[in-house]
Amino acid sequence: MSERLVIIGGDAAGMSAASQARRMRGPGELEIVVFERGHFASYSACGIPYWVGGHVADRDQLIARTPEEHRSRAIDLRMRTEVVEIDIDGRRVRARELDTGAESWTGYDKLVLATGARPIRPPLPGIDAAGVHGVQTLDDGQALIETLERAAGRRAVVVGAGYIGVEMAEALINRGFEVTLINRGAEPMSTLDPDMGALVRTAMGGMGVKIVGNAEVTAIGTDDDGRARAVVTGQAEYPADVVVLGIGVRPETTLAEAAGLPLGTYGGLLTDLSMRVRGHDDIWAGGDCVEVLDLVSGIDRHIALGTHANKHGQIIGANIGGGYATFPGVVGTAVSKVCDLEVARTGLREKDAQAIGLQYVSVTIESTSRSGYFPGADPMTVKMLAERRTGRLLGVQIVGREGAGKRVDIAAVALTAGLTVEQMTMLDLGYAPPFSPVWDPVLVAARKAVTAVRERD
Amino acid sequence: MSERLVIIGGDAAGMSAASQARRMRGPGELEIVVFERGHFASYSACGIPYWVGGHVADRDQLIARTPEEHRSRAIDLRMRTEVVEIDIDGRRVRARELDTGAESWTGYDKLVLATGARPIRPPLPGIDAAGVHGVQTLDDGQALIETLERAAGRRAVVVGAGYIGVEMAEALINRGFEVTLINRGAEPMSTLDPDMGALVRTAMGGMGVKIVGNAEVTAIGTDDDGRARAVVTGQAEYPADVVVLGIGVRPETTLAEAAGLPLGTYGGLLTDLSMRVRGHDDIWAGGDCVEVLDLVSGIDRHIALGTHANKHGQIIGANIGGGYATFPGVVGTAVSKVCDLEVARTGLREKDAQAIGLQYVSVTIESTSRSGYFPGADPMTVKMLAERRTGRLLGVQIVGREGAGKRVDIAAVALTAGLTVEQMTMLDLGYAPPFSPVWDPVLVAARKAVTAVRERD
Repeated sequence: MSERLVIIGGDAAGMSAASQARRMRGPGELEIVVFERGHFASYSACGIPYWVGGHVADRDQLIARTPEEHRSRAIDLRMRTEVVEIDIDGRRVRARELDTGAESWTGYDKLVLATGARPIRPPLPGIDAAGVHGVQTLDDGQALIETLERAAGRRAVVVGAGYIGVEMAEALINRGFEVTLINRGAEPMSTLDPDMGALVRTAMGGMGVKIVGNAEVTAIGTDDDGRARAVVTGQAEYPADVVVLGIGVRPETTLAEAAGLPLGTYGGLLTDLSMRVRGHDDIWAGGDCVEVLDLVSGIDRHIALGTHANKHGQIIGANIGGGYATFPGVVGTAVSKVCDLEVARTGLREKDAQAIGLQYVSVTIESTSRSGYFPGADPMTVKMLAERRTGRLLGVQIVGREGAGKRVDIAAVALTAGLTVEQMTMLDLGYAPPFSPVWDPVLVAARKAVTAVRERD
Repeated sequence: MSERLVIIGGDAAGMSAASQARRMRGPGELEIVVFERGHFASYSACGIPYWVGGHVADRDQLIARTPEEHRSRAIDLRMRTEVVEIDIDGRRVRARELDTGAESWTGYDKLVLATGARPIRPPLPGIDAAGVHGVQTLDDGQALIETLERAAGRRAVVVGAGYIGVEMAEALINRGFEVTLINRGAEPMSTLDPDMGALVRTAMGGMGVKIVGNAEVTAIGTDDDGRARAVVTGQAEYPADVVVLGIGVRPETTLAEAAGLPLGTYGGLLTDLSMRVRGHDDIWAGGDCVEVLDLVSGIDRHIALGTHANKHGQIIGANIGGGYATFPGVVGTAVSKVCDLEVARTGLREKDAQAIGLQYVSVTIESTSRSGYFPGADPMTVKMLAERRTGRLLGVQIVGREGAGKRVDIAAVALTAGLTVEQMTMLDLGYAPPFSPVWDPVLVAARKAVTAVRERD
């Protein structure tokens, strides 16, 4: 007897779940219906800044698998069709075809919510003006590129200096725009501690990005045609031929909330380790619409990142397909590239540790990406937090050039394994002069952290 | 009352031990005497191929600290002075000044052996001819460079295709030589499994290195002046204007053996976790002259690598200085670069696992260094071994281009922590399109390994 799986959202988490479930159960056993409200499925949202910046020539390169390819695997993917209601008691969803407005109910045996995140758009005057763009979906990216091609001048203002904001700043520089980056905090990249963010600010300044910190946007100024012409803060007005919003995202859980599903502190769906929505045996959720367990702090967080979404989808699909898989949680690893600057972080920032009552030591070291005498050895700054007394690693932040960013993986695995900084000093990491000094920068930081832990008590 | 610490060998392990002990105990408490038979101390032997190849312009760049700098820290470093006997009962060493031949005894309270390794030189006809060079010390490197500058032609033959051999092949290509690499095994890089070594052979062939496998060198052919002119194997004779030996190294433990200190299977000194020679309370040893515990197999191995030597020295110095530190062992990580090829390994090869009775599954995957659509995404091959039934990670080998090599660190930390491949599939590694596909190649390999473990039983 065939069951029906309904999936709401056809990007990373949703389509990974569909594909994995299909690998495990054939069409005779499991019918799979996916509703996607946009024009695209299975694409790399993380790649949008590089498409806008011209690193990636063609939008279609960002599409991992076309709707036709999914359909050829017996996945009934319905594009431009938005689910507008979940009826949990009736085990059915109501969907609307966006092009015709036609609505109908579809029953399910298993349901997956993979509704993603939506960009934060504060309710400011002018926020919906022409020329103001988010960069969450391929549709958003397409619209932004069209604006850039038609722009009257070359002044771009990016609002928000998180990783989307800084990546967009680079993309716009690459397209020949003068870029102003307006940031609420004192330093860009609030996913870093401010002392590390300051390094990013300095480096980005050197690349020609004008960074305005401690600034609250109060309005988008528009011209007589209603087109955005400036970004207004409490202190000043920044002329703009295009405005890009990179303020961050929130879980898209409107439907889930209306259906009474459990949401967490950040508005994301709460799941168990198998990615099943808490308290609901036949409903799963994954990707940018859920909260995830932070293994270092033990609390739930919202982290919108394609790599987690893919893992969630794979786990959901395996469980629905009759297998068994769990998502243990995250340690909060992120890496980004701004021109030739590499910025990475994992684990807790100082304020995260403070917020949950962890006492810690913090050390910062300067080293190089290769042996100091080897050509291309670039400076690298590594900050490391370790718990007071126990010496357990709590977090690492890295700012440097080529070869800096992915070194954060060393710390990501160490955090997962619960290593102390003393244990880390003896890690057997790859060493040869083109790859590392004889003491890898992460080990140098660990050695200094060991001393700091010992001196603290 | 002052004690005297005597250290035999003034390179990585010896000088790290001296420096660390000095940081902890001042000259009033501890006298430190170091005997070094060469012309140089504290240099990067790993950097020699890059100096020969011209990446590093000046020999002095490889010297981390000059003898004068050490002496200014109250370390009595005696250059060109060779210890020729250890009298353990009398707690003294006999040293010979190489330039004068003068000998004298020096008493010690604590002794450190940091005598390093010596290149293997098989007793072949012609092996000591002019034009045949090892590359173990700065003195060796200097002699080789002089030969290269005076060479009658541009034909170089490198004997041995381990990491020194392949690095020297690149160095000689960079200097405009035609390079033939003669190897006993079928594939270069015997630190890899042959299937991965084959990838290195293909790539090096594309760089213009002629690789001769399955070849046993039987003699070095010389001309009437006694100068090397060819390398002779069982099958053929390869004309050579210069011959470089990269056959490998053995622990330099002649002195230790004569003194009756305990040696292991590979001829290296055996120590406890504090790097103290087993059974000898006041004698320590570290660096290329000791055997180290392989944490994956639980057996001792000889691994000559600067990064271990530095760690050993730091631990020995801390313990002699009144602190406490231990060296837990290694997982066998190594990384090397040949032109733009990056080659890395950690943990066990198939034959290592077989030799100790571990049953395993082996998987190999192809992926890319960045998201497939991102410019500069280069192919990467990852091989992973996991234990049968338990799924414990046993080893990883990686061959690729930029961004491939240091990914081995993920596996190195996972091996240290004893993770299973199933745990590895959920590692929270840094992801952004310029750094990785959404599933990092190491995770792709781990996923395939999980399936292989499940299907095996």
